[in-house]
Amino acid sequence: MTGTSLDGIDVAIVDFNYNGNEFTFKELFFETYNYSDKIKSIILEIIGSTGQIYNISQLNFALSKIYAESVKSALTASGIDKSQITAIGMHGQTLWHQPYTKKFAEMFVSSTLQIGNISALNVLTEIPVIGDFRSADIAAGGQGAPLVPVFDYHFLRSQSENTICLNIGGIANITYLPKGCSKADVIGFDTGPGNMLIDIAAKKYFDKNYDSNGDIARSGKLDNEILDLLMNIDFINKPYPKSTGRETFNVMFVNNYFGDNTLPEDILNTLTHYTAKSIAANIINSGFEVDKVVVSGGGAKNSYLMELIQSYLPQAKVIDSMQLGVGIDSKEAVCFAFLALLNILGLNGNLPSVTGAKFETILGVTAGK
Amino acid sequence: MTGTSLDGIDVAIVDFNYNGNEFTFKELFFETYNYSDKIKSIILEIIGSTGQIYNISQLNFALSKIYAESVKSALTASGIDKSQITAIGMHGQTLWHQPYTKKFAEMFVSSTLQIGNISALNVLTEIPVIGDFRSADIAAGGQGAPLVPVFDYHFLRSQSENTICLNIGGIANITYLPKGCSKADVIGFDTGPGNMLIDIAAKKYFDKNYDSNGDIARSGKLDNEILDLLMNIDFINKPYPKSTGRETFNVMFVNNYFGDNTLPEDILNTLTHYTAKSIAANIINSGFEVDKVVVSGGGAKNSYLMELIQSYLPQAKVIDSMQLGVGIDSKEAVCFAFLALLNILGLNGNLPSVTGAKFETILGVTAGK
Repeated sequence: MTGTSLDGIDVAIVDFNYNGNEFTFKELFFETYNYSDKIKSIILEIIGSTGQIYNISQLNFALSKIYAESVKSALTASGIDKSQITAIGMHGQTLWHQPYTKKFAEMFVSSTLQIGNISALNVLTEIPVIGDFRSADIAAGGQGAPLVPVFDYHFLRSQSENTICLNIGGIANITYLPKGCSKADVIGFDTGPGNMLIDIAAKKYFDKNYDSNGDIARSGKLDNEILDLLMNIDFINKPYPKSTGRETFNVMFVNNYFGDNTLPEDILNTLTHYTAKSIAANIINSGFEVDKVVVSGGGAKNSYLMELIQSYLPQAKVIDSMQLGVGIDSKEAVCFAFLALLNILGLNGNLPSVTGAKFETILGVTAGK
Repeated sequence: MTGTSLDGIDVAIVDFNYNGNEFTFKELFFETYNYSDKIKSIILEIIGSTGQIYNISQLNFALSKIYAESVKSALTASGIDKSQITAIGMHGQTLWHQPYTKKFAEMFVSSTLQIGNISALNVLTEIPVIGDFRSADIAAGGQGAPLVPVFDYHFLRSQSENTICLNIGGIANITYLPKGCSKADVIGFDTGPGNMLIDIAAKKYFDKNYDSNGDIARSGKLDNEILDLLMNIDFINKPYPKSTGRETFNVMFVNNYFGDNTLPEDILNTLTHYTAKSIAANIINSGFEVDKVVVSGGGAKNSYLMELIQSYLPQAKVIDSMQLGVGIDSKEAVCFAFLALLNILGLNGNLPSVTGAKFETILGVTAGK
C-alpha cells in the first residue's frame, strides 16, 4: 500500500483463512519502507502537472471504451457470439518506450508504457482481457520489443528457405528465421522507419494520410546526398538487438533533413528509398543469408516501396505475407491474440535471443477469468 | 492492436489450435476501426510532452523495483519464505483520481490512475501480483473508492453496536456498519482531509513531517471564523457517495485560507479542529446512529485529534482499531492483501452501496500464476 501521503511503502504479510463463508486473518509482519526524497519529489512533480496527468488518466479509460466498442462492432459484423471468445489480447497505445536503461531517481531504469485500461476493457466487454505484453520482458532485462518474432517462428519458419519476415508499420522490423531454425536461433529487431516518415511527408506536402501505392514517390527523384546522410544516423548502423519509435522518427526528423529547396515529390522519393535501403542495409550488415522476404503491414501495399526493397536485396524473393496465408494488415493483431493465448496456456512469450532479456517469461497481465 | 502510426484499432478474431507441440490458426474476421481525430490529437499531444511522459514511464518501473526491494526486505525481516506467499496485492501510487465523469474527447469519462507496473513486480519478485484494484469499479460506473469498506464489513462489523470505521490517512474516510448489517447496508465515503492539511502546515511552518501527538496544535488557539469558512466548502457538505484526494486538499488550499496574520500554532489548531469536525459533520449530516468509532491510520496516533473527534461525537465511543486486533498503521495494507485474496477466489470486491457502481465486479488484474 502506498497512499496519497507519500510517507512510504507499507508492507503487511497476512495469513488469511476462508471457510467458504467467514474470513479470518492473522497479521504476520508489518513494516513501512520510506520513499526516497527523490522519488517523492518526482511523484509530486507529476501530480502537480494536473493538465497532463488528467489527460493521461482519462485517455487510459477513454481508450478502453473505444476498444470495447470496436470489439462489439467486430462481433456484430462477424456474427461471432461473445461466448465463443476465450480472451481479448490488448496491445494498448504506446505512450513511451525506453528500451535502454537510463539513470532515474538514482536507479538504472528501462520502461515501456502502453495505456488502455485492461480491467476496464474486461468489465465493459465481459470478456477476459490480457494486456501489457511488453513489461515483463523489460523487467527481465530485455527491450520489450519486438514481440512478433515468436509468432513468425511458429507460423512462418521454413525447413528449406532462410526467411526474413518484414513488417512495415510506422516502424519497420524484421524477424530472421534461418532455415530449420530452433527458437533460440531467431533474431528480430527494428530496422528504422517503416511508413512513418513517408506518411509524415505525404501529410505535410500533399495533405494525404499516405502515399497511395507509392505513386507520388515514383514521380519524384532521389536525392543521393540526403540519402547518404540519412543512412549514416546512429540507429540504422547500430547492431541488433535494437528497437525504436516515434521518439526518433518524427516530423522533426523530416524537417531537419529537408529544406525548402527540395521538391516535395523528391522528398517522398528519397524517404521511400531511405525506408527500403535502411531495411536492406540492416539485413546485409547483419550478415544474414536470405532466400525469402515475407512482407506485412501497410508498407506491403506500397508497390514502389516493395520494388525498391527487391532492388536493394536482389538475391532474395520479396513477397507479401498474404501469399503464405497471413493477412498483410491483420498480422500484428493476430500476433497479439496469439500472445494472449500463450499467456493463457502459461507459456513464455518472449524470445531472449530477440529482445536481449536475461530469461524467458510469461508476458501480460490478466483481468477476468 | 493499436500501433505507433495511430491509424486505428485493428481487431482480428482468430481461432487458434494447439496440439501441445504445434500451433495453427484461422483468421475468422479482421477490421480496422479508426481513431477519432480528437483521440489522435490527444495522443500526439501527450507523446509530444516528452519530459513528462518519460518521467511517468520510468517512474512506473522504478516503483516496481522499489516495491520489489520492500517485499524482499519484509520477507527477510519476517523470516517468511517466498514459497509461502500466495500473491502480492499492490495498490500502486495514485497519480490521478477522477471519480466523476467529465467530457473528454467527446465522451463522458471517469478514470483512476495508479502506477507501479504489475507485470514487472511479478518478474522481479517471482510472486504472483494483483493490482489496479480501482479500475473495474470505475468501469462499472462507480467511484473506484473507497475500497476498505469490504474489509471493514468482513472483520469489524458487530451484531450489537452501530459501528463507524474511520481511517485517517492523508484523506479521512469512514465505513458505516449498522449493527447486524448485511453487505448491501454498508456505506462508506471520504469525509475530507485526514492528516494531509495538518502535515502540510507542520511542514510549512515548523519543518516537521507531522504534528507529533498533536502537541503543536494543542498549544494553539482555534480561529472559529476560518473554521466556519472551511466547513462550508462544497466537498464537506455534499452527500455520499463521494471521494477526494490531493486534487482538492493541498498546499494551495492551506495558503488560500490562512494569511500572514494567523499564528502558525493557531493554524495547526484550526486545521486539527477542521479535520475532526468535518469527519463528525459527515457522520451527523448522514443521519447515522453511532455507538462506536474505530479509528485507524496515522491520525489515530494524534491524541489531540482523537480527543477532538470524541468531543464532536459525544454520544459515541471513540477507540483505535488495535483494540479490536487491527493494526492502526497496517490496516490499509492488510486490506489490499485481502482484496488480492478476493480476486484469487473469484469473489467480487466492490460494494455498489459504497462506490455507486452499477454492479459488483471482481477487482484487479493479475500477473503470474
